[in-house]
Amino acid sequence: MKKQMLISLLLMVFTNSYAAPADTVSAKIIALEKAALEKWNNGDPSGYLSLSASDVVYFDPSLPQRLNGIEALTKYYEPVKGQVHVDRYEMLNPLVQATERMAVLTFNLASYQGEKASRWNCTEVYRLEDDGNWKIIQSHWSAVQPQMNK
Amino acid sequence: MKKQMLISLLLMVFTNSYAAPADTVSAKIIALEKAALEKWNNGDPSGYLSLSASDVVYFDPSLPQRLNGIEALTKYYEPVKGQVHVDRYEMLNPLVQATERMAVLTFNLASYQGEKASRWNCTEVYRLEDDGNWKIIQSHWSAVQPQMNK
Repeated sequence: MKKQMLISLLLMVFTNSYAAPADTVSAKIIALEKAALEKWNNGDPSGYLSLSASDVVYFDPSLPQRLNGIEALTKYYEPVKGQVHVDRYEMLNPLVQATERMAVLTFNLASYQGEKASRWNCTEVYRLEDDGNWKIIQSHWSAVQPQMNK
Repeated sequence: MKKQMLISLLLMVFTNSYAAPADTVSAKIIALEKAALEKWNNGDPSGYLSLSASDVVYFDPSLPQRLNGIEALTKYYEPVKGQVHVDRYEMLNPLVQATERMAVLTFNLASYQGEKASRWNCTEVYRLEDDGNWKIIQSHWSAVQPQMNK
């Protein structure tokens, strides 16, 4: 058993694969997203802002085009403070597809106010930064089956 | 000059950084996307299907939830064949954020039929596969400023 562990360790060293197992990365990223989302659901965008990299880009259904960079996102979220009140949410089928330094989290979200649900598609791209933290570099939020403009 | 090239080559070998320069990756990915999009605009979804990995996931405004895997995407695109006719398009502000093995391409798209434009937000996540090809592992298409459901 010890010999097997030693062989595994040597293999890790020689293949230079110190990366965390995929399920660990997946769990970490889902936990980061949920923590930011739970702050958001209580009217506090600071969780998403501190989780985003300086070069983050962002789409949501209210915007006429992609928003670029943390300064623009911070300014955009400013009037949202205190405005969002979600009673409960369901993060449906979260999936993380990862390589060593980048990972994409996708899920559907149901956000409830009373019994009324808002339904969202979400794509978050995370990058492993040099300081060892995963940061969001791309957010895309869209409504599930909105009425389309003719 | 030859000496400089040799030094560069040695540096590449010793730092194990065979990765293509960022602008090359960016140009390659935008070219892949445009080639698939131009087929799509002529009623042919095969460009996107052959560019997608087996584990691709997909959102668009018609779907009630995320679609998972190349088989589901192929089935979903089947009735689209021959139905799309776009006269011209503008890919606005395409941006590629890349690490060695994953890259995210974001852009706004204006698709014209005559003078009428459909406007889209798009996020494509590409992964560098073991065979050296970049493949889409996540697509997210949404309408720009649709009417939201109340």
